[in-house]
Amino acid sequence: MNYQSIREACCEANRKLPATGLVDLTFGNVSVLDPDSGVFAIKPSGVDYDALTPDSMVLVDLNGEVVEGELKPSSDTPTHQRLLQAFGDAGVTSVVHTHSRNAVAFAQAGREIPCFGTTHADYFFGAVPITRELTADEIQGEYEWATGEAIVERFADLKPLDFPAVLVKSHGPFAWGKTADKAVEHALALEIIADMALKTLAANPSAEPIPDVLLKKHFLRKHGSSAYYGQG
Amino acid sequence: MNYQSIREACCEANRKLPATGLVDLTFGNVSVLDPDSGVFAIKPSGVDYDALTPDSMVLVDLNGEVVEGELKPSSDTPTHQRLLQAFGDAGVTSVVHTHSRNAVAFAQAGREIPCFGTTHADYFFGAVPITRELTADEIQGEYEWATGEAIVERFADLKPLDFPAVLVKSHGPFAWGKTADKAVEHALALEIIADMALKTLAANPSAEPIPDVLLKKHFLRKHGSSAYYGQG
Amino acid sequence: MNYQSIREACCEANRKLPATGLVDLTFGNVSVLDPDSGVFAIKPSGVDYDALTPDSMVLVDLNGEVVEGELKPSSDTPTHQRLLQAFGDAGVTSVVHTHSRNAVAFAQAGREIPCFGTTHADYFFGAVPITRELTADEIQGEYEWATGEAIVERFADLKPLDFPAVLVKSHGPFAWGKTADKAVEHALALEIIADMALKTLAANPSAEPIPDVLLKKHFLRKHGSSAYYGQG
Amino acid sequence: MNYQSIREACCEANRKLPATGLVDLTFGNVSVLDPDSGVFAIKPSGVDYDALTPDSMVLVDLNGEVVEGELKPSSDTPTHQRLLQAFGDAGVTSVVHTHSRNAVAFAQAGREIPCFGTTHADYFFGAVPITRELTADEIQGEYEWATGEAIVERFADLKPLDFPAVLVKSHGPFAWGKTADKAVEHALALEIIADMALKTLAANPSAEPIPDVLLKKHFLRKHGSSAYYGQG
Repeated sequence: MNYQSIREACCEANRKLPATGLVDLTFGNVSVLDPDSGVFAIKPSGVDYDALTPDSMVLVDLNGEVVEGELKPSSDTPTHQRLLQAFGDAGVTSVVHTHSRNAVAFAQAGREIPCFGTTHADYFFGAVPITRELTADEIQGEYEWATGEAIVERFADLKPLDFPAVLVKSHGPFAWGKTADKAVEHALALEIIADMALKTLAANPSAEPIPDVLLKKHFLRKHGSSAYYGQG
Repeated sequence: MNYQSIREACCEANRKLPATGLVDLTFGNVSVLDPDSGVFAIKPSGVDYDALTPDSMVLVDLNGEVVEGELKPSSDTPTHQRLLQAFGDAGVTSVVHTHSRNAVAFAQAGREIPCFGTTHADYFFGAVPITRELTADEIQGEYEWATGEAIVERFADLKPLDFPAVLVKSHGPFAWGKTADKAVEHALALEIIADMALKTLAANPSAEPIPDVLLKKHFLRKHGSSAYYGQG
Repeated sequence: MNYQSIREACCEANRKLPATGLVDLTFGNVSVLDPDSGVFAIKPSGVDYDALTPDSMVLVDLNGEVVEGELKPSSDTPTHQRLLQAFGDAGVTSVVHTHSRNAVAFAQAGREIPCFGTTHADYFFGAVPITRELTADEIQGEYEWATGEAIVERFADLKPLDFPAVLVKSHGPFAWGKTADKAVEHALALEIIADMALKTLAANPSAEPIPDVLLKKHFLRKHGSSAYYGQG
Repeated sequence: MNYQSIREACCEANRKLPATGLVDLTFGNVSVLDPDSGVFAIKPSGVDYDALTPDSMVLVDLNGEVVEGELKPSSDTPTHQRLLQAFGDAGVTSVVHTHSRNAVAFAQAGREIPCFGTTHADYFFGAVPITRELTADEIQGEYEWATGEAIVERFADLKPLDFPAVLVKSHGPFAWGKTADKAVEHALALEIIADMALKTLAANPSAEPIPDVLLKKHFLRKHGSSAYYGQG
């Protein structure tokens, strides 16, 4: 069996999803890329998380061709493919899609999540972005690919690791990272931030984003060359 | 003991309800129909879930006569009976009633749940319908039967499997499916959708339903002859 | 050791409180009356639930005198005493006090909980009542007794078992029943109803109470001589 | 190994944080002071809670110098240091920082938490205070120290044990107490109070704080020389 390490990382990350509280039923999937071969492992479609094994992961290349696998890959595969293509140069090797409820609320509301505090600023270098509405042609055509394209379009002027997740309008979040663990952490951080933002709006409907100077302080405390958080 | 398979399916589905988080105290019940004999099994009234056994299920026919059973059936039995009668031709063999809190909120608010996003569109082919208010005569007469009638009336122009649950105004949800597992899944999906809808309204009180083209894409991605989700 | 049966019932009910989700930290207590002797058992003040034993319960008579017990009784004892005095004739033998969060929200908001649906009507024969504000003299004097007096005053025209709980303004709920199990069930039902009511108001800020005919149908379906819910 | 007792108390309190529900990911830390030596133990930065041992705690003195420890202390160390300096005379020996979601909501909303009820009054002698916004110079300079200074400034006219927690604007809560257990209890009480306050505002957006006489009654029932709650 080839691609054993991405099979295992992908299986483990998918199996861990339910315990994070981020997924209900089977609404979530993780992919993991092997950058050298340009092949990624992804969850098979509609299979329960606790039935997953490394062998049941589906292997797909960056052109979308199934390389190995008995089962059909997640129906969201073309979105993962497009993101791994576009964000690979920035070091992204894993994408996580969930329907976590608070992030979905902002996606359904058609609102980016303002940076209301330092928890947010520890992970995102500004508001969590949201994609534009897809056109009827995009929805009726290669819908999942078009979803990926709309994300990449939204990131024309954004660095993927400065904003490690996005809200797809009317749908839900995609998150990513340099490893599967980091991608799942970003999906979880997004959900926490979205929960805090909803509660902030409940406490003060006209709450304002934090000043830029505080945003920079917190984001750069954890990221980049002058980071001083953690043991790194 | 006759009807062993529906006794067992009904017992198992009822016993699983508390773990879904959909029921508090004893507010919930499941019925399972044997379409060949026109007999259904249903939870006995007011009995704790973990005390249920296949033998304690009550067997009722589609005319509402108890066929077998020492205990009184759920007081909601006539509603189950009416739904299994009316929706049997569409393949429905199981009905679930809960007082799950977010779905109840919309039922009490007298609002259908708008289709705000793709999670909703994966399960319902439009807004989750709500019944009209019952008349005083209906309430004072055969109340539980009238509840079933009001649901069937609301579905005059709807297919039961295009909308696998309903909100009974001022009361709560009923869900159904081709199997007990599917009926419970639909009750759970409804509760998740209702939670997301409340949070969507908190993020944007004037949130709009998704466009029809996106609704069709998602519903038909999972249902009908051109479905491509899952391994089917 | 005397009063063994109320010691055991009181200990068991207090120990079960944290698992209901109704109490945080040590914010809750249960009392159980022996109607024959006019003595009730109550939780000692400020002791952790899992450290409670039947022997550590404090025995108090209906005049407020400690009959047996090494420890100080709950500081809320005079409120329990007043309720057990006043509601004993109606068959009440147990009182539960919690700071359950949704019920507290209505108590702090100074609003009774309107009967928005049938879950509520299954337990309360109308809106959940709230007490008036206490006067400065009452607060500075025998505060806990005055709290009980305000509840009894609010029930001048209400039957205790038609409304098995009350909101004390700016404070939180007291619930009661014919047994400790029923009193805890009523405290739990109140919290569920309060949660549903908050969510109903979120879905529709101008939601209306249900019609009287539906209220009567549901309450009397479970209570009184024509009840037909359960196996009784 | 020196300072064994504060190492152990600090390790135990940090390890217990996730079970309280107050921390997500690694967003939280506890410090414990040895008042005699002026040295405090604090969580190392960015380490998972279940990997902590008494030996991995970092020892820092009240001038901010690391006394013992292989790992870098929490990036929030200067805030803990400033609070332990300023509040030590009042008997404070432990500080807890979390990003608990409801308290963060008020911090992000820029609102103190009004005293809406007796649960609040049992712990805080009035509204939970919030700090002013930091200046750009403070943020770009010794940020974590400036955070501590802003808290101390806010407490110019407040006693630390009358208000055992504060909201840092745009950030989140710090709590403290005479022991680590009490500091964690105060962080938890704050989160409960914040949850109740959000729900109170949902039930009544113009809810008012409780009268002073009731605030005094409840706070002094549990604190100070005439306290009569508990067994003390």
